[in-house]
Amino acid sequence: MNTSTQIQLEIIKRGSHELLIEAELESKLKSGRPLRIKAGFDPTAPDLHLGHTVLLNKLRQLQDMGHHILFLIGDYTGMIGDPSGKNTTRPPLTREQVAENAQSYTTQVFKILKPEHTEVVFNSSWMDKLTAADLIKLAATHTVARMLERDDFDKRYRNNQAIAIHEFLYPLIQGYDSVALKADLELGGTDQKFNLLVGRELQKHFGQSQQCILTMPLLEGLDGVNKMSKSLNNYVGITENPKEIFGKLMSISDQLMWRYLELLSFESVNTIAAWRKEVEAGSNPRDIKVKFAQEIVTRFHSRHDAELALADFETRFRYGSLPDEIAEKIIKIQEDEIPLVQLLKLTGLTSSTSEALRMIDQNAVKLDGEKVEDKITKIKRGQSIVIQVGKRKFARAIIQ
Amino acid sequence: MNTSTQIQLEIIKRGSHELLIEAELESKLKSGRPLRIKAGFDPTAPDLHLGHTVLLNKLRQLQDMGHHILFLIGDYTGMIGDPSGKNTTRPPLTREQVAENAQSYTTQVFKILKPEHTEVVFNSSWMDKLTAADLIKLAATHTVARMLERDDFDKRYRNNQAIAIHEFLYPLIQGYDSVALKADLELGGTDQKFNLLVGRELQKHFGQSQQCILTMPLLEGLDGVNKMSKSLNNYVGITENPKEIFGKLMSISDQLMWRYLELLSFESVNTIAAWRKEVEAGSNPRDIKVKFAQEIVTRFHSRHDAELALADFETRFRYGSLPDEIAEKIIKIQEDEIPLVQLLKLTGLTSSTSEALRMIDQNAVKLDGEKVEDKITKIKRGQSIVIQVGKRKFARAIIQ
Repeated sequence: MNTSTQIQLEIIKRGSHELLIEAELESKLKSGRPLRIKAGFDPTAPDLHLGHTVLLNKLRQLQDMGHHILFLIGDYTGMIGDPSGKNTTRPPLTREQVAENAQSYTTQVFKILKPEHTEVVFNSSWMDKLTAADLIKLAATHTVARMLERDDFDKRYRNNQAIAIHEFLYPLIQGYDSVALKADLELGGTDQKFNLLVGRELQKHFGQSQQCILTMPLLEGLDGVNKMSKSLNNYVGITENPKEIFGKLMSISDQLMWRYLELLSFESVNTIAAWRKEVEAGSNPRDIKVKFAQEIVTRFHSRHDAELALADFETRFRYGSLPDEIAEKIIKIQEDEIPLVQLLKLTGLTSSTSEALRMIDQNAVKLDGEKVEDKITKIKRGQSIVIQVGKRKFARAIIQ
Repeated sequence: MNTSTQIQLEIIKRGSHELLIEAELESKLKSGRPLRIKAGFDPTAPDLHLGHTVLLNKLRQLQDMGHHILFLIGDYTGMIGDPSGKNTTRPPLTREQVAENAQSYTTQVFKILKPEHTEVVFNSSWMDKLTAADLIKLAATHTVARMLERDDFDKRYRNNQAIAIHEFLYPLIQGYDSVALKADLELGGTDQKFNLLVGRELQKHFGQSQQCILTMPLLEGLDGVNKMSKSLNNYVGITENPKEIFGKLMSISDQLMWRYLELLSFESVNTIAAWRKEVEAGSNPRDIKVKFAQEIVTRFHSRHDAELALADFETRFRYGSLPDEIAEKIIKIQEDEIPLVQLLKLTGLTSSTSEALRMIDQNAVKLDGEKVEDKITKIKRGQSIVIQVGKRKFARAIIQ
C-alpha cells in the first residue's frame, strides 16, 4: 500500500455515485491489508461496451492501489436460464458456454484490468453446493416487504405486473456471493444499490464484517438519453474496430462529450477543467472530441490505430470542410429504424422525401462522411450520425 | 371398488366443506382404479385430538371404498425448524425425533385408519434431493401477487406484519409433494385450501393430471368458539384416558353436541335426525350426550372402558341429581386462567368471592362432580366445566 488512506478515499470516490459507508471503508483502508473488491458480471453477454468500462476503470484504480479484485461471473443463475420458461431468447447456458464466455470476457477486461491481480471467480462454485434447505434459510433472512422496496419490484407490483417468486431469491443469491467471497467492498451500477445492500445484510447475518458499497453512474448511450446498452443499439463496443469506435465517438453531441470525458477519460481532472475553459473561450470542441476518441481507440487498440482512424475520418469528412457547429436534431421514432429519406426530410436537410431521393441519386448524401448509394438505407434507433447533403448542409441526427 | 360412483361421491361430500372439482373427481372415480389420496400432517405435534379426526374419519371412509391413503408427514420443513431463528420454541427436529414422532402418530392414527391400506410417507425422501436450483425453478412457477392472495399473507401484508420470503416457498413445497406423490385427491382443513390449490397448479406445471381437493370443516373446541387446539387447551386428545374423554364430552353445550355429532359420530345421518326430533319433542339431550361420549371412548379405548367411564361419571354426579337443564355461562378472561372463587362469583353461584371461599371450606363445591379441596384452584381458558354449589345450584362455565 503506497498511497495514504485519504488519497485512496479521494480516488475511490471520484466519479462515483455513492459510497456507503465511508467511515467503514476508511477504517478498512487504514488496516493496510489489500481489500477484497467484488464486482459481478452477467455471464450471458460478454460483449463489453464503454458503459461497462466506467466500473472497470474504477476497479483498475483500486488495483493500482494494491487491492485484490474478485471478478465474479454470475454463472449459477445463467445456467438456470429463465426458470419461468417464458423467455425463450434466454436459454440456460451450458458449462462449456460459460467457460467460453468467461474466456471472451477476460480477454476484453484485461485491456483495463491487470490479469495478475485479478481473480476470476464463478458463483456456481459455491452455489452448486447449496441445497434447497440452505436456500430456504437464506430466504428466511429477508421479508417480502423489504424486497418490495426495490425500485423495480415496487413499480411492477404497483402496476400489477407479475413478479415471479424466484426473482426475490436472486438478490439473496447475489448477496450470498459477498458472504462466500468475504468481500470488503462491492462495486456496481446505481441500479444495483439494493442488491449490494442485501450483500451487506447477509454478511451481518453470517457474522462477517460488512462490505462497503460503491455505486458508479450509468453511462448514457450515443443518444445521450438512455443508458448505454446493446439492445438499444446506442453503444460503443470495446471490441469494435478502431474506425467504428472513432467515428461513433466523433458523432456524439458536445454536451455528451463532457460527460464521457468525466466518466471514461484517464486525463486528470485539471486537464479536463482546462479544456472546458478553452471551449468557453471560443475554441472548437471538435478538437477535444478528437483527443478523446483517440484516447479510447488507443486504450482498446493502439496509438497507431488511433492515428489511422483519425486520418480515415479526416479523409472521409475532408477535415476542415466540417463546420464548427453542426445543428443537432433529436428525432424520436416509434419503429426500430427510420428510412434515410424520411430522416433527411425530418432534419430539414431536404424539403421533401422526393428531394431526398433525388439527392441520393446524385451521390450528394453522406453519412458520417461515407457516400450513400442505397436509396432504401435505414438508420437504427440509438444512433448518433452526421448527415451531409451537398457541400454545405450538415446535421447531427440523434435517433431516439 | 364395490360402491357406485354416485354413492361414493355422496359419502365423500358428506360433512365436507368444499369439493373441487366434482366433475373431475367423478371421472377419476369412474376409472375404477384405487385413487391416491394425500393428506399432510405436521411432524412436530403427534398429539392428535378430536379436531384431527374429522379428516381422519373421511380418510377412513375413502379407505373403506378401496382407495389408497398417502399419510404424508411433512418432516422436511420440520427438520429445517424456524429458519428465521426467531422462534426458539421450534428447534429443528432431528431425523430420530421425526421417526419417533411418526411412530407415535401412526399408533394414534391406526385407531381410525387401516394400517394395511395406509402408506406413511415422508416428504424429506424427495425434498432432500432438491437442489437450490430446483427450488428456484419451483419458485418461478408462482407470482408474488398470487401468493399474497392467501388470506393470512394478505392480512399480514396489509397490517405491515413481516412475511419472511421463505414463507412463500412453503406452499410450493407442499404443492410439490402432490407432484411427487401423483396425488388424485388431497384432503385438508378449510384453512389449507390455498395450499391444496398450489398442489393442483404445480401438477399442471409438471404435466400431471390435477388433484381434486376436499376441504373439511375445522372442529370447534370445547369452548364452542375457537378451533380445537392444544395451545388453546380446549381439546380432547385421543390418547387421553377414558374418564377424561368422557367427562370433557359430557361438559359441552347442547348446541356444540349437535356439531360434534355431525363431524365426529359414525351414527347414520338418519339416526342423528331422529335424535334431534326426540329432543325437540322434549327428551333430555343429556342422554344423547352420553351415547356420543360412549361412542368416542369406545373408538379410542373400548366398549368396556366406555361403560366404566359412564359409571364413574354417574357416581361422581350422583346421576339423577343433575338437573335437566344447566345454565350455561360464557366467561371471557384476559389471563390464561381464572381463580375458581372468582368464577363462582361471575357465574352467580355465590354472591361474592368470600362466600365462594366459605363454600369451598365447607366442601360444598364440585367441579365436574369432583369435590374441590384447594381454595386457590384455578381453571384454564378453553375449559368447559360443570360447577355445583351445594345440592341444587349448577352452572356450566365455558371459559374463553
